Amino acid sequence: MKIALLLTGNELMTGDTVDSNSSMIAQELASKGFDVAHKVTVGDDIDLIIAELEKLTAMYSAVIVNGGLGPTIDDLTAEAMAKLSGTQLVENSDALIHVNTWCAARNIQANKANLKQALLPSCATIIANPVGSAVGIQLEHNNCLLLCTPGVPSELAAMLDGEVLSSLQSHFPDATARLVRRLKLFGIGESACQQALEDECPNWPEEVVVGFRAGAPLLELKLEIEDAKHLALRDQCEQQLMDCIGEFIVGENDDSMASRVVALLQQQKRQLTLAESCTGGQVASLITGIAGSSEVFEAGIVSYSNAIKAKVLGVDTSLLEQHGAVSKQVVEAMAKGALNVSGADCVIAVSGVAGPSGGTEKRPVGTVWIAWGGHDGLHSHRFNYPVGRAFFQTMVSALGLDLLRRYLTGSTQVPGYFQRERR
Amino acid sequence: MKIALLLTGNELMTGDTVDSNSSMIAQELASKGFDVAHKVTVGDDIDLIIAELEKLTAMYSAVIVNGGLGPTIDDLTAEAMAKLSGTQLVENSDALIHVNTWCAARNIQANKANLKQALLPSCATIIANPVGSAVGIQLEHNNCLLLCTPGVPSELAAMLDGEVLSSLQSHFPDATARLVRRLKLFGIGESACQQALEDECPNWPEEVVVGFRAGAPLLELKLEIEDAKHLALRDQCEQQLMDCIGEFIVGENDDSMASRVVALLQQQKRQLTLAESCTGGQVASLITGIAGSSEVFEAGIVSYSNAIKAKVLGVDTSLLEQHGAVSKQVVEAMAKGALNVSGADCVIAVSGVAGPSGGTEKRPVGTVWIAWGGHDGLHSHRFNYPVGRAFFQTMVSALGLDLLRRYLTGSTQVPGYFQRERR
Repeated sequence: MKIALLLTGNELMTGDTVDSNSSMIAQELASKGFDVAHKVTVGDDIDLIIAELEKLTAMYSAVIVNGGLGPTIDDLTAEAMAKLSGTQLVENSDALIHVNTWCAARNIQANKANLKQALLPSCATIIANPVGSAVGIQLEHNNCLLLCTPGVPSELAAMLDGEVLSSLQSHFPDATARLVRRLKLFGIGESACQQALEDECPNWPEEVVVGFRAGAPLLELKLEIEDAKHLALRDQCEQQLMDCIGEFIVGENDDSMASRVVALLQQQKRQLTLAESCTGGQVASLITGIAGSSEVFEAGIVSYSNAIKAKVLGVDTSLLEQHGAVSKQVVEAMAKGALNVSGADCVIAVSGVAGPSGGTEKRPVGTVWIAWGGHDGLHSHRFNYPVGRAFFQTMVSALGLDLLRRYLTGSTQVPGYFQRERR
Repeated sequence: MKIALLLTGNELMTGDTVDSNSSMIAQELASKGFDVAHKVTVGDDIDLIIAELEKLTAMYSAVIVNGGLGPTIDDLTAEAMAKLSGTQLVENSDALIHVNTWCAARNIQANKANLKQALLPSCATIIANPVGSAVGIQLEHNNCLLLCTPGVPSELAAMLDGEVLSSLQSHFPDATARLVRRLKLFGIGESACQQALEDECPNWPEEVVVGFRAGAPLLELKLEIEDAKHLALRDQCEQQLMDCIGEFIVGENDDSMASRVVALLQQQKRQLTLAESCTGGQVASLITGIAGSSEVFEAGIVSYSNAIKAKVLGVDTSLLEQHGAVSKQVVEAMAKGALNVSGADCVIAVSGVAGPSGGTEKRPVGTVWIAWGGHDGLHSHRFNYPVGRAFFQTMVSALGLDLLRRYLTGSTQVPGYFQRERR
């Protein structure tokens, strides 16, 4: 079923904010059978908002409005809905309870701005916001269902998955969900995937639609079917993918690289430690972002200076002098030192040149040595990703985690990351 | 001057591609006085594209179309323009020269798909594409200037800065650029800011337009004027803001919390060290994300387990037993330990319960102790942010950095973060 989106907010018009909400909405709802066919974005201009809503409600049976529910004067959605529906803004008792409860939980007195969020069109009902202070608004106009959602992404996400979806489903029970399986890949690009499919899966059935979403560091590959009767076919296709590019598949659906590594460590009852130089704590941060990681994570040392590499990790200063900090010898000594200090049984150590300065002819910006493994042996490898500081740190963190993931699943070979050729 | 955007492409509707082109267009043009007031996004559906163009050309004097200029069958922009203007698609000699030159430079023979890109409405002129094979299309309809640009970001960027802007400026010489100042705030919400403005800046001039952009952890406050003659007025307004909420202002424009802290450390030639438990390396990661941070950052210890707190940071095990890891005594001992180990001269130490498990009655999920300061003295404070693991880590990392920022600027008092009442 086709639906429309209306996004509001001056920050979307000025380009200050890149709109990722509409992508979130489209993806979340498409899997349930609601396709966004039309998207309009306007600033905080009430006449324009109302005019666009008149048009969209005449064209579609459901419109999702995003933004403009906050407490400030430029948050106009409630007022626009009242004008559109020819009703008054009144204090909505459910919304008032929500705002007061929200403020009380934070030990603050609801002020005028907070209380504005409880003023809703008299014909509207609320959509619960499990995260923030602004409730959503639901009403009908022109025989069209209007669902108004907050612009803050975390609040939108919570609301979408909850009452927005259930409201759409109860109003439009005939919308048929597509069945989507999402695989998360690291170390292979979209074109190499596409080539592998063409070369190695020549009889791919048209019932299983392949889609990609490029991301960093993970690439998402979607397998979509319209009917549950094709589930076995989709499973066959997935098996074909496993056979040809399975080593790059990190996980599925909500898996991240870190969640996959934490899960493997938990299964194997192993403890991880980290010695990070150029990634500066990002690997530790990714690991500890996973709930339950304290079971498997002991300690990480961010050893930015050579002095700390020697003092805390016990790296021999002669190695540092002889080979430099970005070397096989030093990164392996960092890994051993972290294992010794922490008592953990596996490790990732990273030392590289993130840039923009600090490069040399021998070790230009983008050079990185990674060591990984455990008491049964350490492995190390030199990589080169001259891609700018932030992206370098993102990619190298993922690289370290992926090498550990492969080690925990029994492979210590370094794959041809992003270098897969046609077979 | 207000303009409109029409973006086309199925990949924008499914959410597989996050649209960053419109943000690029808006930012590039806003600084020159052309404001995107209306943005419509539709899939590769020619009837919908034409219907939307009829509406937008009736409402605005200029519309920028983005996408649909490529060589494939779902690239419909040229055909849509021909139908809209009631003209035929004909081979455009300028476009043909461009396509042939582009192919020749790559040693390829122009194929049918390439040559499709030279078929333009007979009433159109081309917009040069210095990068790619698809020329842009310029025409007028409904007394409105239509500029059709390619969806590939690098091609769009080259075209925007070139002929698109010069065409807009020659058609609308009266458009005047606006001047924007962006302030970044931490520890105060949008509603409290608004309240402070209402209460303490009652005679705010209408020439200085205030806007907000909510973000986590920083809130952005924009001060916008239309004319350089109001610069002094804007400076006065900024001074008023400094007087009433200045302590919450972290920086301006592209400043982040971490970049501000790194800059202060650089100015003061001080070295930072970190002892992180519940933030798990996120503070280190934020600091080391800043180019040049190696000058001021020695080492961070992510001491997730009690054993490491004792072993690496030298926290007395009796303190851990007596007070627990999340306590004033332990977080201060962690801070001292990190200073001792690293030889740095200032420190942030964090110990808390990120959740979802691990909370107790005395120290529920969301409890965190932060210690900060230097050899001239340590400060510590208990906070409570029961907001979910990921957001807790984001906020607590920012909180630690903000307390250090305040310490480095001479204040050791803990402000009422997010609790500002009406004065």
